[in-house]
Amino acid sequence: MIFELTILGSSSAVPTSKRNLTAHVLNVHERFFLIDCGEGTQMQIRRNKIRFGKINHIFISHLHGDHIFGLFGLISTFSLLNRDKNLHIYAHAELENILTKHIEYFERNLSFKIVYHHINPKRNEVIFEDSKLTVETIPLKHRVPCCGFLFKEKPLLRNIKKVFVENHIVPISQIQKIKEGEDFITESGDRIPNNEITLPPFKQRSYAYCTDTAYYEKIIAIIQNVDLLFHEATYASNLKKMAKDTFHSTSEQAATIAKKASVGKLIIGHFSARYKDLTALENEAKAIFENTVVAEDGERHTIPLTR
Amino acid sequence: MIFELTILGSSSAVPTSKRNLTAHVLNVHERFFLIDCGEGTQMQIRRNKIRFGKINHIFISHLHGDHIFGLFGLISTFSLLNRDKNLHIYAHAELENILTKHIEYFERNLSFKIVYHHINPKRNEVIFEDSKLTVETIPLKHRVPCCGFLFKEKPLLRNIKKVFVENHIVPISQIQKIKEGEDFITESGDRIPNNEITLPPFKQRSYAYCTDTAYYEKIIAIIQNVDLLFHEATYASNLKKMAKDTFHSTSEQAATIAKKASVGKLIIGHFSARYKDLTALENEAKAIFENTVVAEDGERHTIPLTR
Repeated sequence: MIFELTILGSSSAVPTSKRNLTAHVLNVHERFFLIDCGEGTQMQIRRNKIRFGKINHIFISHLHGDHIFGLFGLISTFSLLNRDKNLHIYAHAELENILTKHIEYFERNLSFKIVYHHINPKRNEVIFEDSKLTVETIPLKHRVPCCGFLFKEKPLLRNIKKVFVENHIVPISQIQKIKEGEDFITESGDRIPNNEITLPPFKQRSYAYCTDTAYYEKIIAIIQNVDLLFHEATYASNLKKMAKDTFHSTSEQAATIAKKASVGKLIIGHFSARYKDLTALENEAKAIFENTVVAEDGERHTIPLTR
Repeated sequence: MIFELTILGSSSAVPTSKRNLTAHVLNVHERFFLIDCGEGTQMQIRRNKIRFGKINHIFISHLHGDHIFGLFGLISTFSLLNRDKNLHIYAHAELENILTKHIEYFERNLSFKIVYHHINPKRNEVIFEDSKLTVETIPLKHRVPCCGFLFKEKPLLRNIKKVFVENHIVPISQIQKIKEGEDFITESGDRIPNNEITLPPFKQRSYAYCTDTAYYEKIIAIIQNVDLLFHEATYASNLKKMAKDTFHSTSEQAATIAKKASVGKLIIGHFSARYKDLTALENEAKAIFENTVVAEDGERHTIPLTR
């Protein structure tokens, strides 16, 4: 039951020789969710040994080129590889117009169907749900309509103790009920209380993705207590004015959000290409929120199971 | 006086973890010409330490996505870096429509001007000329209008012998004339024959870029005797039928063209993603044309000066 983030690209609008354009992949129980898709994303997916066929859902924060230009090549490659499963794209309605025109011209014989889910970046609402998780929009503050995404594992069931299974014959029909908290009735009619035969469930895990955005305190309530927060930190604090003017954040601001939201761990990224050395951004963030790490392309961040 | 090719991407339509989409850069006397621009080209330019500001001319063979999707990000980055020089793009007229619509939507405040040069892929003609070289189209045989490009250095001047310059006072006004072949008249009126004081000029160098194309003998006359030929070799010989059906070439066919055109060296590339090991393609080509090399991303091929 894995819950793991892979960072495919950590640069802002101009890529560098070491940092690709924005894209993340979140693996929740072997479902792979692609979040943003800057140029080069398909190559980064390959380099990081993620199987194309596992990606069925793409979430797009906003329609700036550095977050979507990789869609053209990804869609082309999916089609060349004869994908037949539907591809679900969650984005501002305008993306459907852009991609539809693009596909009409370049991909006349698309091998699969794209299902567009129009999102309203101004609202905080659940836009995706399956048996394992929900995805909510997080309204952000940027030059164009933009939202982050909160991925939240659904409540997990109680775990049946090994020793109980070894010592009793448990009908399959009973297993689900025990996991849900019911007591066990033996063949002879004895009742064994649930808390004697199970352990409490593992905690729900969560990941919040917040880019691109100016410092915006309204997100704090939504991302409160998430295990892992990615928050953009395009600039160091000496460029706070530029961050404000361009609707981006400094690493100090990202850390302030992390602290106020009491998150478990903060990843900063979306760095301006001007920074060859990110020590200043890292130190400024850590001074406010100690458990901060600098995003690196290809790095994986696993949230372990805990009770 | 460098003449050097850098291969940025050597895969066909589907990139792999090691092979990027098609793009080459030719450096002729420190003028950098970009040839095709698949997704990821701007990152490959950076990784290979080629300065964006040196690129003023882009040549596009045809309008399939794997040869042009990198233009979107490259243009965006040029603008974000406040480029002000004109960018010249040589391509089928339709590219102007595509890019114009794209720029209207995504790059409202483009910092520079794009000058479109519409080419006719069906004709062999000079489409670019400056003091150092000419570029000609090479009509190819593909599913859509497509042409290669022949880069040919202009005739170089004779070289004045060191010993002559060391022993005579040569007015600057005379230097150019001597290089052009004139004799030298000393102050005392003596004539020194040109061939005593100069060496023959270095040979003109040339590079022909031929992708995407089926086996097409009509190109042989155009590329006769080029120093360096890049010819696509999407498949091994056992997939000759598929090559024909998709208007691509096998490595045997690429080598046959190289042999018949008596080129100096052949680079094969544009490999199908199915090949993890290219030994078969390499061996099949070498059996026909010995001086064949397999394209590798980031590799440079220099054509040295010879007399």
